[in-house]
Amino acid sequence: MVGRAIAAKLAELGHTVTMGTRDPQATAARREGDAYGNPSFAAWQAAQPQIQLGTFAQAAADGELLFNCTAGGGSVAALQSAAPEDLAGKTLVDVANPLDFSHGMPPSLSVCNTDSLAETIQRTFPALKVVKALNTMNANVMVNPALLAGEHSVFVSGNDAAAKAQVTALLRSFGWRAIIDLGDLSTARGSEMVLPLWLSLMGALGTPLFNFAIAR
Amino acid sequence: MVGRAIAAKLAELGHTVTMGTRDPQATAARREGDAYGNPSFAAWQAAQPQIQLGTFAQAAADGELLFNCTAGGGSVAALQSAAPEDLAGKTLVDVANPLDFSHGMPPSLSVCNTDSLAETIQRTFPALKVVKALNTMNANVMVNPALLAGEHSVFVSGNDAAAKAQVTALLRSFGWRAIIDLGDLSTARGSEMVLPLWLSLMGALGTPLFNFAIAR
Repeated sequence: MVGRAIAAKLAELGHTVTMGTRDPQATAARREGDAYGNPSFAAWQAAQPQIQLGTFAQAAADGELLFNCTAGGGSVAALQSAAPEDLAGKTLVDVANPLDFSHGMPPSLSVCNTDSLAETIQRTFPALKVVKALNTMNANVMVNPALLAGEHSVFVSGNDAAAKAQVTALLRSFGWRAIIDLGDLSTARGSEMVLPLWLSLMGALGTPLFNFAIAR
Repeated sequence: MVGRAIAAKLAELGHTVTMGTRDPQATAARREGDAYGNPSFAAWQAAQPQIQLGTFAQAAADGELLFNCTAGGGSVAALQSAAPEDLAGKTLVDVANPLDFSHGMPPSLSVCNTDSLAETIQRTFPALKVVKALNTMNANVMVNPALLAGEHSVFVSGNDAAAKAQVTALLRSFGWRAIIDLGDLSTARGSEMVLPLWLSLMGALGTPLFNFAIAR
């Protein structure tokens, strides 16, 4: 859902997009939608013919800027399948959350408090410039903040000021106005740790179409 | 700060208030303010003569409804100093957060993810009806939501519906309108885990006078 939403928005904005997956043939051959009512990749791609499908390695090779939209538990493995030279110096927007469903619902986090998924990725791939962003809202809100009324916020964390500026400009092109720079990448602990509250709120409000705003 | 803010608001609303502390004599004798610019208890109490100061045990005995405004690391010990019969059947509004400053700033949490301070208190004192609330904002905002513009939220978690209704009514009397019932007490994990984001936001915004709002 997240990858499709971001890929479609990037394509709409005129960017060239390659989506990566473990087994592109299997993904392309699938004809069933998923349990959430999303169509098969093939059915979705029919309306997005300009978006390429490839391996994670091909997506990393093609992209000038990378988005990590994998499940948190698979993020490091997905990036390990890329050639190191295809990661070197590139900005990675880390949209993933380290949700752990192994103990049932609601999920807990597989890493938190004194570490984060974003920091784990940055430590494992020091040549990447990791910027945490967009991980605190539903995919439809990520690429269309005007879906919700009023001003609401997207949080940005990262160690590289130029990479954060690049991501901030991209977020503006998505329609974001209230972009809050939380600080260095350790502040991604905070935005990842908001997920349990987000999940409770989805239950309490009966919809995933909401977002955090900051009242002053 | 939290205990004073809530005690003063309760007194203003006509409630009879006893504040508990480890050593009331020492607290009353102190003449220096604290490092945050707050006056000594004696100086503060001079303007709040109707508020009594006693031990934690006295506060638990006097109160029909209890507020836990201790530091998270001291909450269980404070409640253990109360007579069990003074806790039995009472609602405890748990405003504390399990902040752990032992590894420096910013603090991490001493319990999170698969447990929470609120659940720890509930397990340790099963005769209490623990309701988590007000722990996601500055003390001045807790008792005066109109300090901030627009509608912003307070989250409530608890296992006892009647206790949550009692706390919700009290929050309304404090001026709260956007009161969100997150569910049972396990949802306090989410509101406690928002603290790291709150602390980063205080740094980014340069003020503790803000709160989370929910855009729909």
